[in-house]
Amino acid sequence: MQRIAIVYHSAHGHTEHIASKVAEGARSFADDAAVDLLKADDVTAKPDALLAYDGIILGSPTYLGGVSGPFKSFMDATGRIWRTQGLRAKLAAGFTVSSLPAGDKQSTLTSMMVFAMQHGMLWVGNPFLPEQLQGVPNEEAVNRLGSWSGLMAQAGHASAADAFAPGDIKTARLFGQNFAQTLNRVSA
Amino acid sequence: MQRIAIVYHSAHGHTEHIASKVAEGARSFADDAAVDLLKADDVTAKPDALLAYDGIILGSPTYLGGVSGPFKSFMDATGRIWRTQGLRAKLAAGFTVSSLPAGDKQSTLTSMMVFAMQHGMLWVGNPFLPEQLQGVPNEEAVNRLGSWSGLMAQAGHASAADAFAPGDIKTARLFGQNFAQTLNRVSA
Amino acid sequence: MQRIAIVYHSAHGHTEHIASKVAEGARSFADDAAVDLLKADDVTAKPDALLAYDGIILGSPTYLGGVSGPFKSFMDATGRIWRTQGLRAKLAAGFTVSSLPAGDKQSTLTSMMVFAMQHGMLWVGNPFLPEQLQGVPNEEAVNRLGSWSGLMAQAGHASAADAFAPGDIKTARLFGQNFAQTLNRVSA
Amino acid sequence: MQRIAIVYHSAHGHTEHIASKVAEGARSFADDAAVDLLKADDVTAKPDALLAYDGIILGSPTYLGGVSGPFKSFMDATGRIWRTQGLRAKLAAGFTVSSLPAGDKQSTLTSMMVFAMQHGMLWVGNPFLPEQLQGVPNEEAVNRLGSWSGLMAQAGHASAADAFAPGDIKTARLFGQNFAQTLNRVSA
Repeated sequence: MQRIAIVYHSAHGHTEHIASKVAEGARSFADDAAVDLLKADDVTAKPDALLAYDGIILGSPTYLGGVSGPFKSFMDATGRIWRTQGLRAKLAAGFTVSSLPAGDKQSTLTSMMVFAMQHGMLWVGNPFLPEQLQGVPNEEAVNRLGSWSGLMAQAGHASAADAFAPGDIKTARLFGQNFAQTLNRVSA
Repeated sequence: MQRIAIVYHSAHGHTEHIASKVAEGARSFADDAAVDLLKADDVTAKPDALLAYDGIILGSPTYLGGVSGPFKSFMDATGRIWRTQGLRAKLAAGFTVSSLPAGDKQSTLTSMMVFAMQHGMLWVGNPFLPEQLQGVPNEEAVNRLGSWSGLMAQAGHASAADAFAPGDIKTARLFGQNFAQTLNRVSA
Repeated sequence: MQRIAIVYHSAHGHTEHIASKVAEGARSFADDAAVDLLKADDVTAKPDALLAYDGIILGSPTYLGGVSGPFKSFMDATGRIWRTQGLRAKLAAGFTVSSLPAGDKQSTLTSMMVFAMQHGMLWVGNPFLPEQLQGVPNEEAVNRLGSWSGLMAQAGHASAADAFAPGDIKTARLFGQNFAQTLNRVSA
Repeated sequence: MQRIAIVYHSAHGHTEHIASKVAEGARSFADDAAVDLLKADDVTAKPDALLAYDGIILGSPTYLGGVSGPFKSFMDATGRIWRTQGLRAKLAAGFTVSSLPAGDKQSTLTSMMVFAMQHGMLWVGNPFLPEQLQGVPNEEAVNRLGSWSGLMAQAGHASAADAFAPGDIKTARLFGQNFAQTLNRVSA
């Protein structure tokens, strides 16, 4: 059985909503997959909790072009694990949410990739051709924003926590599913 | 009088169209500003042409997350100038075009910033609050895609060379105008 | 008179040491320049303090490929200023410290650039040809590590807070001086 | 049997030398691994050659903070494969060479990661703790430069093509070996 952690920070519920859809997708791949949603603050307090997982998905809002402060504090808390290479060769991926279509979300995803590389992990992205290219309407399309390094989703600041375009929700599920499927291909 | 070069590569005319709007914006700031549109291939052949300018704006389509091959060849051709620091302290900015809203265009802009830094230049971005935040409709809004490191514009592959959302065209003009205005603030 | 803030976070004194050398360099340019060293935590509590400055230099250790958690929290605290564009058109630069020569410090500097762009600031880097190219010994050479987007300095984790190669200290002073000089070229 | 391609561009032989050491490392893992060294220019002419491989390692010098122009032209030539997702789920990694310790090589590696993500590939880095941390002398240490997103090696412009520090050569072999080992863990 594969164990997946989704470590996320969410100030207003938007990133948490996407995290739950990613979890749904991961669980849809295999009934026996254990997928845990972990709040970044909790992992900051106990980073060794990560050692139990085979795959780790990182999720943060984009604040001024990077992960949130609480999420960076979680990242820093893994420094001790870095020295013992406790996460080496595990699988990693990342997602981020902001209110504009591009919104400097790519720099957030890149910083997650660099972090995962520091830990010696493998990185899997968001490998879906944007469905607009096949004529699906913009709001409905998988990977409608055009992001491959990881998953992007867009939600207005003042909007309800679940107010995402249908395409973003579909992409989140596929992203989680693809992560579980990829993890299944990688032996320990 | 300030002299501005817009160095661009355009395979299908989309990036050239945005370049022309950036030029319009730059010229609108001061009647006596000299704004030249230079094809990247021509500058590759004669990189010293850049030495005559006070400010340089870089423009390329985004191909697979970076500048185009011909644009990178132009960048490489400035290597000799790098060694003599011929562009040091001049002003630089960048823009890019692709067919998706995010579309890994930010990594293209970042690579342009890194290039300008290697030459010791100053960098000015696209400093406009997205107008959706003030209730302007998405397609009309300045900086509708949400990009600050430089200008982003979106155009479908098979679309006409001038088929951009009105917001992208407005942003291109403002971006050019702000560049000229900033250059005017910087003494040699 | 120009006012410069150096906002930094330092856990073990290394980044603070470099900050003080950058300040020396900035003060060396003009006797009447006001250069203030501000701890990131203090600015997190009162971000409006930044509004009084013409130029802002950002300094953080590199932790796992990015700025430190406390430094990111400072960045996030400027979110309110972002909405009113209170830092627009001011000058920015950045520096970072880690224990390896490359050490994923470039991603830290890039994240600072992206942050400054979000605020609509101008960016000035570290525009010095590495002096090894002119035959200066490695440890003594200005820009010996080879970084242009900002200043890099290298110090071992367990080393004394001032245990830097002479070249890094020289570069820090020149970087501060060049910032003050550049700020002097930019009218408000 | 696993098939690995090392696609590289080398103007003066330095990057080619590192490519050969990466190949040695990959071959050392399994006698029956097929490891092919492919010149980027040749793949530009026939990009479909990549389809036969299970893993692809990208290698380029760093020119002004990015891959070389010829290497970017090779990247662009894979655009057709992008549309049919011909490289999806294969394994990728990258390496780069320049003359300074940091030398903006990280931005080159990041651009390779973004490229691999666009193709839907998995990314494996350079997961080795720098051996200086265990007291190995600088020049001898594995990952002495401190790079995790991919492999970095340093060589002076005018130096012989094989004039690398012993640590860089060791790292290159380990990097190739780890790639082959990782590929072996990933089922098709």
